[in-house]
Amino acid sequence: MVIRAGIVVTGTEVLTGRVADRNGPWLAEQLRRIGVDVGHVVVVGDRPEDLEAALSFLTGTGADLVITTGGLGPTADDLTAQVVGGFQGRPAALDRGLEQRIGQIVERLMARRGWRSDPESTAAGIAKQAMVPDGATVLEPVGTAPGLVVPPAAGRTGPPVVVLPGPPGELRGMWAAALAAEPTRAALSGATELRQETLRLWGTLEAQLAATLRDLEPELAGLEITTCLREGELEIVTRFPAPAQAAYDRFAAVLGERYAGTLFSTGPTLDELVTGALTDRGLTVATAESCTGGLLAARLTERPGASAAVLGGVVAYADGAKEQLLGVPAAALAEHGAVSPPVARALAAGARTRFGADIGVGITGVAGPGGGTAAKPVGTVHLCVLGPDGERTRSLALPGSRSAIRDRSVTMAMHLVRELLLGGPPA
Amino acid sequence: MVIRAGIVVTGTEVLTGRVADRNGPWLAEQLRRIGVDVGHVVVVGDRPEDLEAALSFLTGTGADLVITTGGLGPTADDLTAQVVGGFQGRPAALDRGLEQRIGQIVERLMARRGWRSDPESTAAGIAKQAMVPDGATVLEPVGTAPGLVVPPAAGRTGPPVVVLPGPPGELRGMWAAALAAEPTRAALSGATELRQETLRLWGTLEAQLAATLRDLEPELAGLEITTCLREGELEIVTRFPAPAQAAYDRFAAVLGERYAGTLFSTGPTLDELVTGALTDRGLTVATAESCTGGLLAARLTERPGASAAVLGGVVAYADGAKEQLLGVPAAALAEHGAVSPPVARALAAGARTRFGADIGVGITGVAGPGGGTAAKPVGTVHLCVLGPDGERTRSLALPGSRSAIRDRSVTMAMHLVRELLLGGPPA
Repeated sequence: MVIRAGIVVTGTEVLTGRVADRNGPWLAEQLRRIGVDVGHVVVVGDRPEDLEAALSFLTGTGADLVITTGGLGPTADDLTAQVVGGFQGRPAALDRGLEQRIGQIVERLMARRGWRSDPESTAAGIAKQAMVPDGATVLEPVGTAPGLVVPPAAGRTGPPVVVLPGPPGELRGMWAAALAAEPTRAALSGATELRQETLRLWGTLEAQLAATLRDLEPELAGLEITTCLREGELEIVTRFPAPAQAAYDRFAAVLGERYAGTLFSTGPTLDELVTGALTDRGLTVATAESCTGGLLAARLTERPGASAAVLGGVVAYADGAKEQLLGVPAAALAEHGAVSPPVARALAAGARTRFGADIGVGITGVAGPGGGTAAKPVGTVHLCVLGPDGERTRSLALPGSRSAIRDRSVTMAMHLVRELLLGGPPA
Repeated sequence: MVIRAGIVVTGTEVLTGRVADRNGPWLAEQLRRIGVDVGHVVVVGDRPEDLEAALSFLTGTGADLVITTGGLGPTADDLTAQVVGGFQGRPAALDRGLEQRIGQIVERLMARRGWRSDPESTAAGIAKQAMVPDGATVLEPVGTAPGLVVPPAAGRTGPPVVVLPGPPGELRGMWAAALAAEPTRAALSGATELRQETLRLWGTLEAQLAATLRDLEPELAGLEITTCLREGELEIVTRFPAPAQAAYDRFAAVLGERYAGTLFSTGPTLDELVTGALTDRGLTVATAESCTGGLLAARLTERPGASAAVLGGVVAYADGAKEQLLGVPAAALAEHGAVSPPVARALAAGARTRFGADIGVGITGVAGPGGGTAAKPVGTVHLCVLGPDGERTRSLALPGSRSAIRDRSVTMAMHLVRELLLGGPPA
């Protein structure tokens, strides 16, 4: 039995891209795990009629549950609770107890930050946040805003609407309560587990894979396969109900054979593979970056517990810094220029020596848009990884913007580390 | 005259959050600049019926133009062109000339990357990409996929649909051609300029601002105001037609008075302010980071031309690295611990000295989730900025996840640099 949900993300700041939405994807993933399929995520601004249209649309697609995020703040442009109440035919009334609880939270918050608090002028905002549609379940605030579960009014049909706040921490903190509410449980009962598996290739053109998938098509019944090319990595994600596990295993085996030269993961991300390999072998790493400006160090330390493996790094934009902090020979800089394979190697060696790390990574290049020359155009990047098991070097001519060049260089560095530590397909 | 557009972002990888959508916001911003208002961005997976439902929905909202992104690749799950053609009542046929042009592009691409090319097996994918709905305008490929502008078939009503590829570089490269196509021009004629202005506050609670906005409401006619709290920054974005400029100026003046203590920008972002101040004064900066792991250096070097101001940075996770690379006194580490105000100061001083920079920034803290103690719980962060005009220090007890703590620390460091260089509201 396929249970479906639709998600509405509200907020002009999301619609216009000033804030990237993190809630839609998070909710989609939570729902997938409990066997609920998400067909649409609709992003709307703060106009009530646009939100209402989105609710009508999702209800019309036959969604069993609709979830909204955002628009629960104290300002007048935050209208979600009011619009959802109206849509479900449930007029709102002030919940005095809730008003008091929110008031206490706001007071504590302002006191802690030492901000001047004017209880009277904020009271209107708090009262607004405490308006509850008749018959709705209140989800207690994690920040200051309460969430709601609003079923359709008696005599009406349609899915219940779960109303969640926009800040990701608040939304996530409220999710268990949203699932436990009776209308949500009723809407989702009968959902069956949907599995998801991922294969990752590095260095295969999407068109090649497309041909393979066409070949295999008769054997792929029950598998929903999507492919996605990202920074040179080709990700194959397959979703399937439990009975199709055998079909998936056959599919994965065939791909493993045909793409032995490029398949680098049957699940974990590149970052998980690298961190895992460092941890398993008790190895340490240090970085020396020029054009990537600290992005590699930031990526290596993104995962908790990184300090065990990452000793540190140097961002050496200036040539003087390359010499003094990393011991890059002045002669190498003079003879080959800062953007050159010998300097990439000297950077890696410097990082290794200065931090006393097992593995050193050096990156030097021209991220642009300025700074390119005929001999070394924008996109020229040299990488070197030195480690206990040997070394890997690579020179790239990358297309794209400054940020694309920086991101791709960091990904390539991660692949070089992976290859050095784990073998497998060449980076 | 209000011209409205709707956007459909396709791709299961976006719907499930494996890839963050960058196209919807970019398109919304481009459209806003030419006076076109975007009401909804709908994200759908790769199922044709979901895409069709989204097209129906946006057409039903009265959109004058619908734009789709993604789903133009060679794999079988890429179905956008086909679905849009069907929706507009225009059957597709193979465009031989286009097929040839795409074939040449793919050949060059595979040759350049040195990937094994099997022309026969990729031919099916190329032929699929060259299927053009009858009467549609072809937008020449920037990558391998062509775009389309598909008006409704003769006798049908509804907006034209602009079909663009998913990779942001390809989509952006094709945008001018999409706007120039006759059906697009006809749909957007009559759009009038919509202005957008932004005010940024640091250290004001959203509830306070809400009260102010309620006070001012009678004077805000013609202004569409949205507020958004992000990492402690409160952003007030106002959109308005040109005749409401005077009303906006009055609004901005009132806020400037009431929030003199927290309004730090009437337009530029924090990053623009910091980079601008460094460049204007010809000052250089260097960083010494612990818990933020290179994120501050990466953020400072994100903008082009950074090398003039940023000399570099050190990521010193290990205490040894703090001592040897940055000259942090062993005594300070022993007496106060690595996470302490004196060490933040020694880090800033070390960065300044070692790189010979005008400004040094030091950050040390516990990003978690492990590593916290009763005295120094997760979220404890100490910052110090030393410069020619003095210094700024700050100690924080931040809530939230590892990534929230790292991001917020970096933002605080940027505010400290801003305050040191430009004065204005305290960081």
